[in-house]
Amino acid sequence: MALPLDRFIAAGGGLLHRRVLLRRGLVLACALPASRAALAQTDTDSAALPDWMQTPGAPFSGYGQPSPHEAGTVRRIGANRLVDGNGVSWTPLEELEGLITPSGLHFERHHNGVPRIDPARHRLLIHGLVKQPLAFGVDDLLRYPMRSRMLFIECGGNSNAGWHAEPIQRPAGSFHGLVSCSEWTGVPVALLLREAGVDPAAAWVIAEGADAIAMNVSLPLAKLMDDALVALFQNGERVRPENGYPMRLIVPGWEGVLNVKWLRRLQLSDRPVMARNETAKYTELMPDGKARQFTFVMQPKSLITSPSHGQRLDRPDVYEIRGLAWSGRGRVQKVEVSADGGRSWAEAALEAPVLPCCLTRFRAAWRWDGRPALLQSRVSDETGAVQPARRALLAERGSNGYFHYNAIVTWAVDEDGAVTHAYA
Amino acid sequence: MALPLDRFIAAGGGLLHRRVLLRRGLVLACALPASRAALAQTDTDSAALPDWMQTPGAPFSGYGQPSPHEAGTVRRIGANRLVDGNGVSWTPLEELEGLITPSGLHFERHHNGVPRIDPARHRLLIHGLVKQPLAFGVDDLLRYPMRSRMLFIECGGNSNAGWHAEPIQRPAGSFHGLVSCSEWTGVPVALLLREAGVDPAAAWVIAEGADAIAMNVSLPLAKLMDDALVALFQNGERVRPENGYPMRLIVPGWEGVLNVKWLRRLQLSDRPVMARNETAKYTELMPDGKARQFTFVMQPKSLITSPSHGQRLDRPDVYEIRGLAWSGRGRVQKVEVSADGGRSWAEAALEAPVLPCCLTRFRAAWRWDGRPALLQSRVSDETGAVQPARRALLAERGSNGYFHYNAIVTWAVDEDGAVTHAYA
Repeated sequence: MALPLDRFIAAGGGLLHRRVLLRRGLVLACALPASRAALAQTDTDSAALPDWMQTPGAPFSGYGQPSPHEAGTVRRIGANRLVDGNGVSWTPLEELEGLITPSGLHFERHHNGVPRIDPARHRLLIHGLVKQPLAFGVDDLLRYPMRSRMLFIECGGNSNAGWHAEPIQRPAGSFHGLVSCSEWTGVPVALLLREAGVDPAAAWVIAEGADAIAMNVSLPLAKLMDDALVALFQNGERVRPENGYPMRLIVPGWEGVLNVKWLRRLQLSDRPVMARNETAKYTELMPDGKARQFTFVMQPKSLITSPSHGQRLDRPDVYEIRGLAWSGRGRVQKVEVSADGGRSWAEAALEAPVLPCCLTRFRAAWRWDGRPALLQSRVSDETGAVQPARRALLAERGSNGYFHYNAIVTWAVDEDGAVTHAYA
Repeated sequence: MALPLDRFIAAGGGLLHRRVLLRRGLVLACALPASRAALAQTDTDSAALPDWMQTPGAPFSGYGQPSPHEAGTVRRIGANRLVDGNGVSWTPLEELEGLITPSGLHFERHHNGVPRIDPARHRLLIHGLVKQPLAFGVDDLLRYPMRSRMLFIECGGNSNAGWHAEPIQRPAGSFHGLVSCSEWTGVPVALLLREAGVDPAAAWVIAEGADAIAMNVSLPLAKLMDDALVALFQNGERVRPENGYPMRLIVPGWEGVLNVKWLRRLQLSDRPVMARNETAKYTELMPDGKARQFTFVMQPKSLITSPSHGQRLDRPDVYEIRGLAWSGRGRVQKVEVSADGGRSWAEAALEAPVLPCCLTRFRAAWRWDGRPALLQSRVSDETGAVQPARRALLAERGSNGYFHYNAIVTWAVDEDGAVTHAYA
């Protein structure tokens, strides 16, 4: 890099000011001067044109698919070998851009597979502490006023490999990819509960799915009355089977397991049900051996998706650091990046829109000088909550954790440009 | 409807105030009181449970697909019978929600089919009035700073059935569905042009695609330097083949044909090339027989997607009017709806985010009393431009038009609740 970039330095290790990201000359030329052969192809009668310009292309299609050349961009499946419907599949975050996750790549967490539901026979039952139990079919719900919101959903077990004593080496998506983001559209739960008539004694709602384990959890009534949705649409079209077709409970900013898929009933109660997935699982084991339950809200988190594990920087140059940040507490306010393992920080640029409880894409410019570097990102949300260093998270939570890991992630770049996971 | 809604009236024909959309009791109960059989199913040991709760579900999948029950939600293809790669396919707008169009349903307009491009062999050439012609491969472009934007793309021929003397009867999407909205991520064209070095004599850029007709158009250099992108990603993943894989020119707010798919070259010039698709096509034939060329910007437009053609209101009740609005001039500022053919108007609620050159979802509450009604929507954008009545559009443009139709759309609801297309 011969470019005179020193006046743009924002933090140690070569981080540059946000405002120069799109300036002239910041980026080394990656393109090659056009060859004579390339210029000859500007003649559209040339026999040198690629074969796909010499014959008519494929016809129209009713429902499009990715290019066969992108067939490797798939969810990474980690399923139980004996029970193939129990496990997870990860979103390949390091291969994606923007904030929307394509629905076909939205992460999955199933406890007993994806039920094959006939929407004409599916009902949502609202019962328990209500004046009048009600049953809603899909067509009934389509009549109600709707809301659309772009929201992340993150599994409470996302990033749990971070609890390991040694840094596990996996691609970013196969480590942190139990988070995805969609535009969800559905009916506010409050409308439906009011129609059933909420008994003043009700304080909790037990939500249950129509899968073969009837997966259930307890939620405070107040949250459901505030901003929960029964979603019928995901990224414009009907919810995908693996994401809850024909209807999914959406609980903005709260743990994934609470966003009950294949929603079949909401039972109003004066107490939680103490289900498996809120007692044995999805709780936070603390250093004193007790477990925190019902923590619900996903805490602020961020992740650099490029450069990240498994990628390689092929030469000293200016690179765009790209990543995702989110918080279940509200909007992302600020993302900082470090190239020296957290000794100094520079503020990243945030892509619009920055929405509450939604993934936010950040970008920063970095001049890599060819020496080892430690890349990190740290998000602050609008409530003032800041993503903790790993050391701070362990000090609070001990080392026996499994769920709700949100520490700063470190990628180490070595002299050869190889990127690995590190603790720093 | 026995509900006392008169105090919420916002305009004629039963339009209600926006703020009551989500209020208690606004909507008539669509749900049925839960039957004894339904309540029995709250026992998860019950033999009455649906079959999909009695056996494990389907395993994880690498790339998900819509439910087989939604197989009817596809693009409607209108291709040339002799040349099956020439024509369009429409987005079924009336079946979708929110603002994102699923990539599989993004409209298509091809002139000679979808080229099967090997991304490893594809190059973007920048040449003509530049200091140094350059060639960029996909991997080169992935190194550059990127931007992400949610943007609509609308074909200049969208809604052209509106020029017919009689109102054509088709579903909303098969009439107005040559508009779709994606989150596009790519490299600002300005960065690439600066790297090639723009000759001061350059004023136009000729963009050409790598399909079998080498589709080309001319664009003012200033627009490309302002906000155009070479997009590599659409809704998070790589651009779909039918939308330009591996790279597409994105020209925010401008006519669809200018967003050149399969982009293979940008030639800087001092004049436009006068290509077929900016002379014989995509121009506006005026009443005096002359044609407007190079109008570029898509004017403000809106459309009620529900209720719309082919749907039926099954009883007098409160309905949510749902629709989409957009403008290539900037943000949507206001959408008004009318239930009396434009005599009176009420303001609709806009879903966040409201972004420039992006689809915006609007919603309004309407109490249908069972009498004939004429539903309309009218958008105003942040520049003050207002969607015209059909009469006004015809007065300005005459009746020989084919492109750039953006008049107010009217849906007639008859006493039986049937919805048809009308002029009013």
